[in-house]
Amino acid sequence: QVKKDFSFSNRGKTLEDELNESNAYYLERGFAVIHKKPIPLQIVKVDYPSRSSAVIREAYFRTPSTTDYNGVWNGIYIDFEAKETRNKTSFPLKNIHEHQVRHMAQVIRQQGKAFLIIRFSSLDRYFVVPFSLLEDSWNRMIGGGRKSIELAEIEQAGIEVIPGMYPRIDYLPAFEQLYRNEESEER
Amino acid sequence: QVKKDFSFSNRGKTLEDELNESNAYYLERGFAVIHKKPIPLQIVKVDYPSRSSAVIREAYFRTPSTTDYNGVWNGIYIDFEAKETRNKTSFPLKNIHEHQVRHMAQVIRQQGKAFLIIRFSSLDRYFVVPFSLLEDSWNRMIGGGRKSIELAEIEQAGIEVIPGMYPRIDYLPAFEQLYRNEESEER
Ligand SMILES: [Mg+2]
Ligand SMILES: [Mg+2]
Repeated sequence: QVKKDFSFSNRGKTLEDELNESNAYYLERGFAVIHKKPIPLQIVKVDYPSRSSAVIREAYFRTPSTTDYNGVWNGIYIDFEAKETRNKTSFPLKNIHEHQVRHMAQVIRQQGKAFLIIRFSSLDRYFVVPFSLLEDSWNRMIGGGRKSIELAEIEQAGIEVIPGMYPRIDYLPAFEQLYRNEESEER
Repeated sequence: QVKKDFSFSNRGKTLEDELNESNAYYLERGFAVIHKKPIPLQIVKVDYPSRSSAVIREAYFRTPSTTDYNGVWNGIYIDFEAKETRNKTSFPLKNIHEHQVRHMAQVIRQQGKAFLIIRFSSLDRYFVVPFSLLEDSWNRMIGGGRKSIELAEIEQAGIEVIPGMYPRIDYLPAFEQLYRNEESEER
């Protein structure tokens, strides 16, 4: 059981807010260059009330064709999707789009690194989860199996990030550990 | 003098359209995973006319903090900005934001590869231009020098991409050549 330290409370921040803070911290210190991609929108109507300003008056959300975050760390291409669930025992796969799975597989094929960052909000627990576990679970679902990844599987294959002071979610060391484990398995 | 082959005409396509075609081609064949980032918007007002649909009714364009394109090729992080100019003898630096220069410098520091793709629209000529030339020209401007990169400098330091059939702008081999040249200079 992980003891919750309320001095490191997230004060109602979304996972995205927390990861933006982490990424700003990494960028400032020269540890990594990782950014969230903007939300893709289909812009239909733009007004120009004055020469210098433009107001979008009609636009629609589009389904993203990739993941939310990517960037570079130490010569390595990094690509991940961040997801929260209020579920306490498993991560439902309906949170992930099929084309995101396809995208992450493409990244791996190009020798980039793809993973998930999952927050179990009700438990205040965070994990860096390798794409391999997502892929296996996805194929299991397609084969008629369960439509989720069990927390126990995530504890087993992923690396937990214990919330800290600043940045609250220091996920890069967890990713590094995952990456070193993979490298030593390959040897 | 480059002979213009009208069978490979761009038929009024923007550089962005052309590069999207190139990237789709690379993705399909497993050559690289490179995507254009969505335009960053500040969303102010969203209407929900029905349960399943959302219409953005007020949003504003934001200044991008990074470049337009990034991705991974063969284990290498790739990051570039694409720009067109109607100018015939030089590329005006006012087309580039200072924070984009800063971003590309950060990418290089993380051992990623950063460059520009410049289209001289009036000439129908395209170049992959290494960040080093942009950086030198930027510093020259800050030091009080010219506010542009001369075409002759681009011809010298960059690699020209001759428009072809499909994809029309096959920029990856040009990038590869640039990258090999850098590698051999470092040795
Ligand atoms: Mg997301
Ligand atoms: Mg641009």
